[in-house]
Amino acid sequence: MKIGFLIIGSEVLNGKISDLNTKILADFLRPNNLEINEAMISRDEKSSIKHSLNELFARHDVVITSGGLGPTKDDITKETLGEFFGRNSEYSDEAVKVATENYKRFSRDFPGKEHGYCYLPQGFVPLSNRTGFAPAFHTRDKNKILISAPGVPREFKSILEDHFLSIVKDLIPKNHFHDHVIFRTRNVPEEKIFGEVDTSLWDKLANYGEVSSLPILMGVDIAVKVTGSSNDELAGKVSAIKKIMQESPVSKNIWHIGPESIEEKIVVLANQKKIKFGFAESATGGLCSHRITNVSGSSQCFMGSIVCYDEKVKEHILGVSHETLEKFTAVSLECAREMAQGLQKNLSLDIAISITGFAGPGGGNDKFPVGSVCIGKGLKNGEVSAESFILKGDREILKQRFSQAALYALLDEVEKFA
Amino acid sequence: MKIGFLIIGSEVLNGKISDLNTKILADFLRPNNLEINEAMISRDEKSSIKHSLNELFARHDVVITSGGLGPTKDDITKETLGEFFGRNSEYSDEAVKVATENYKRFSRDFPGKEHGYCYLPQGFVPLSNRTGFAPAFHTRDKNKILISAPGVPREFKSILEDHFLSIVKDLIPKNHFHDHVIFRTRNVPEEKIFGEVDTSLWDKLANYGEVSSLPILMGVDIAVKVTGSSNDELAGKVSAIKKIMQESPVSKNIWHIGPESIEEKIVVLANQKKIKFGFAESATGGLCSHRITNVSGSSQCFMGSIVCYDEKVKEHILGVSHETLEKFTAVSLECAREMAQGLQKNLSLDIAISITGFAGPGGGNDKFPVGSVCIGKGLKNGEVSAESFILKGDREILKQRFSQAALYALLDEVEKFA
Repeated sequence: MKIGFLIIGSEVLNGKISDLNTKILADFLRPNNLEINEAMISRDEKSSIKHSLNELFARHDVVITSGGLGPTKDDITKETLGEFFGRNSEYSDEAVKVATENYKRFSRDFPGKEHGYCYLPQGFVPLSNRTGFAPAFHTRDKNKILISAPGVPREFKSILEDHFLSIVKDLIPKNHFHDHVIFRTRNVPEEKIFGEVDTSLWDKLANYGEVSSLPILMGVDIAVKVTGSSNDELAGKVSAIKKIMQESPVSKNIWHIGPESIEEKIVVLANQKKIKFGFAESATGGLCSHRITNVSGSSQCFMGSIVCYDEKVKEHILGVSHETLEKFTAVSLECAREMAQGLQKNLSLDIAISITGFAGPGGGNDKFPVGSVCIGKGLKNGEVSAESFILKGDREILKQRFSQAALYALLDEVEKFA
Repeated sequence: MKIGFLIIGSEVLNGKISDLNTKILADFLRPNNLEINEAMISRDEKSSIKHSLNELFARHDVVITSGGLGPTKDDITKETLGEFFGRNSEYSDEAVKVATENYKRFSRDFPGKEHGYCYLPQGFVPLSNRTGFAPAFHTRDKNKILISAPGVPREFKSILEDHFLSIVKDLIPKNHFHDHVIFRTRNVPEEKIFGEVDTSLWDKLANYGEVSSLPILMGVDIAVKVTGSSNDELAGKVSAIKKIMQESPVSKNIWHIGPESIEEKIVVLANQKKIKFGFAESATGGLCSHRITNVSGSSQCFMGSIVCYDEKVKEHILGVSHETLEKFTAVSLECAREMAQGLQKNLSLDIAISITGFAGPGGGNDKFPVGSVCIGKGLKNGEVSAESFILKGDREILKQRFSQAALYALLDEVEKFA
C-alpha cells in the first residue's frame, strides 16, 4: 500500500507558514507499519492541484490531501477534486448532517442550505471533524483511495485518528512489520562517526536495514529502518542492531536509544527519581522552560524558572553580585555559577541550570564572541560549576543550540542523581 | 522564471523533522519578486529523486534541491543528479579548493583526496558554503538551471544568500513587481469575516490581486498578492486595497498591516516608547518569553520573566497570597491579578502580563476546564486587571494560543501607553 501526500496551500509556498502535516501524517502512520512514499506541495490553483493529483495517483494506492477545505473563496480543493474525478457536485444530506454536528460541537448553529459545506461531488463520503467546522471526505475510484482533510494541523490530525484506518483497512498489508531503531548521539560530528570512530559501522548496520544519519541541533541521530514478515523476525534484527552499536566505540556517545526527545527523557527520569529542577535563563530567553513544559507530566519535576534577560533581574532576583557583573560581565563562567546558585536557593531545587551567552546579532567580545554560551549548574548539596561552549548559527538557531547544551547538562545531572 | 523546489530527505517523510527550507526559500525569493511554484518531497532513493526531477524540470526553469549532500552513505543527491543529467563524476580541483576552504573556516583540515567532496559530475560548478562543510553546486542544461544546497536550514539559507541571484540573474524578469499586502485580524472567525461582517470584501479585494485567508493561532490573516509592471502600478493597487480595508467594518479587527509577527510589533513599539515589560508565566511555561526574545532588540524592553510552574514559586517569588491559592486555586482571575501585580513590583516593570491556565491533558474543573486561561495585567500606575478565555487544542497548541492571548493583551497595553 503506497501512500502519497498532497499539501494544498499557497501559504506554504509563499512562506507564510511551514508545513507541519507531513510530520503529523508520518507520526500517525509509523505505528501502523505504514509510511509516506512521496509528498507534493501545490498552490491553491486548479491546474496545479490536478497536475499533482495525476502524479501522485499514478504511483500510489492512497492519496491524502491537506488544505483548501475551508469556507473562503481560495478553498477550492473539493471542487477541484470533483472535476479531477469527473463527478458533479450535488446537495448532500449526509454532508449537511456532518457539518451541522461539527458546528454543534462548538455550540454554533450551522448557517444552513446556502453553505458550501452542503455540497459534495457524487460518491464522496463526508467525514466528521471533531476539532473544526469543515467536513473532511473520502472516495474510491477503481482501486485508488482519496482522503481529504483540512490543513489546520489539529484538524488534520484528528481526521486521521478518527477515520484513516477504517477507510484503508482492506489495503493494509498483512505480515509486514517495520520499526525504526534510533540511536541519539552527541559530542561527535557526523563525519567523524563514520569516517574515523567506526568506519565499518554503516555497513554492519546496513545488513539489517536501511541506515540513515541525521545531524540535529548538537548531536547526530543514527537510525536503522527494519522490516520483517513477523514480529519475531523484527525483534531479532533489532537486537542484532543494538548489539552492533553496543560493541561500537560510538556507544559512548549515545545518550538515548529511541525516538524520545531529550525533554521527554529528562521529565520521565526526573519524575522517577523525584527530582525538582529549574532554569535561570538569560540567552535562551525562556526556551528551556518552554521545551520542558511541552512534556505532559513536567509539572511534577519542573518547579519554574527565572528568565533574567536584564542585568537587574540577575542581580536583584537571582542575587548575582554586582562585583561579578562589573568585573566579569553577565556572559561569564562566574556569572553562570552565581545564577545557578541563586536559582537553586531561591526555588529550593535539587538541580538548577543557568544559561548566559550571546545569541546575537549584537554583543560578544574577544573572549566570548556571538555564539558563546556559559552553562552553570547548582546542586542541592552546594556544588556549583560552569562550562562554556562556542556554537554557530543565527539568533534563533543559537537559542536552540544553547537550550540543547543546557538540557544535556541537566540530563547528565538527572542521570547521576542518586 | 518558474521555480520548483525539491526537498530530498527520507527524514522529512518519516516525520523525524519538519521541512523548514520551503519557508526559508520563499522568504528569500519574495523581496526579489520571485516565488516557488511547486515543491516536492522525495526519499533518499535514486528512483524517487529522478522521478521528481523529471517532473519539476518539465514545468520549471530553475529547480533548487535541498538535502543529501553530506558525507554519509545515505547522501546520494550529487551522484543521482549526475546520472540524471548523464554526466560522469570526476575529480575536480575546484571542488577540492571549495571544500578545503569550507573546512578551513571551521579551523579543520580537509581530509583530502579520498573524500567524496573531491568529485563532481562534469559541468557542475561547486559553491562555497560559509556555514558548513559540504560544498553546494549548480549547473545548466540547455535552458534549465539546477542549484543544489545542503538540507541543514542554516546552510541552505546561506547558500541562497551567497549564490542564488548571481546564478539566475539573466532569467530574472524585468518589469515584473509583486507584493503581498497582509492584514492581520483578531477577535473574528474566518467564516464571519466574509460571511457576515463584510460579504463583498473578498470580491472587492480580488479586483486588485489574488486574495487569500489564513486562520493562524487566534486570528485570521487576509492577504492580497499584487503584481504590476512598474513600481507605480504596484503602489496604486496597494493603496486601493488599503482603502477598501479601511472602509470595511473588518477594519476594527485589524491589529497590524504587514508580515511582521506580534512579537516583532511589540518589541518595535515598546522600544520606541521605552517601555519595560515581562511575564509571569505558568501555563505557557516560558513560551511568551521565548517568542519575545526571538526578536533582535528585545533586550531593551524585555526585562525578564518568572516561570512559576509550581505554586510555591507563585507564592514565594511572586507573592501570590496563600489564601488566594487556597480559596480560588492557581487557575483563577484572582491568582492572575496577584501574579501580574507581584511581577510588576518585583521587576519594576511598566507592564507585567501574567498567564495561568490548564494546557492539559490533566487538570481543569467545571469553571475552568482544560483550555482555560486567565491573563492578568499589572501596570506601573498600580492598575491591575485580568480576563479569562476558553480555547481549544492539545497541550502544545494550547500553549501557543495562551501565549497569543497574552501577547494580544501586552500589545493593547503597549499601544495605549503614553
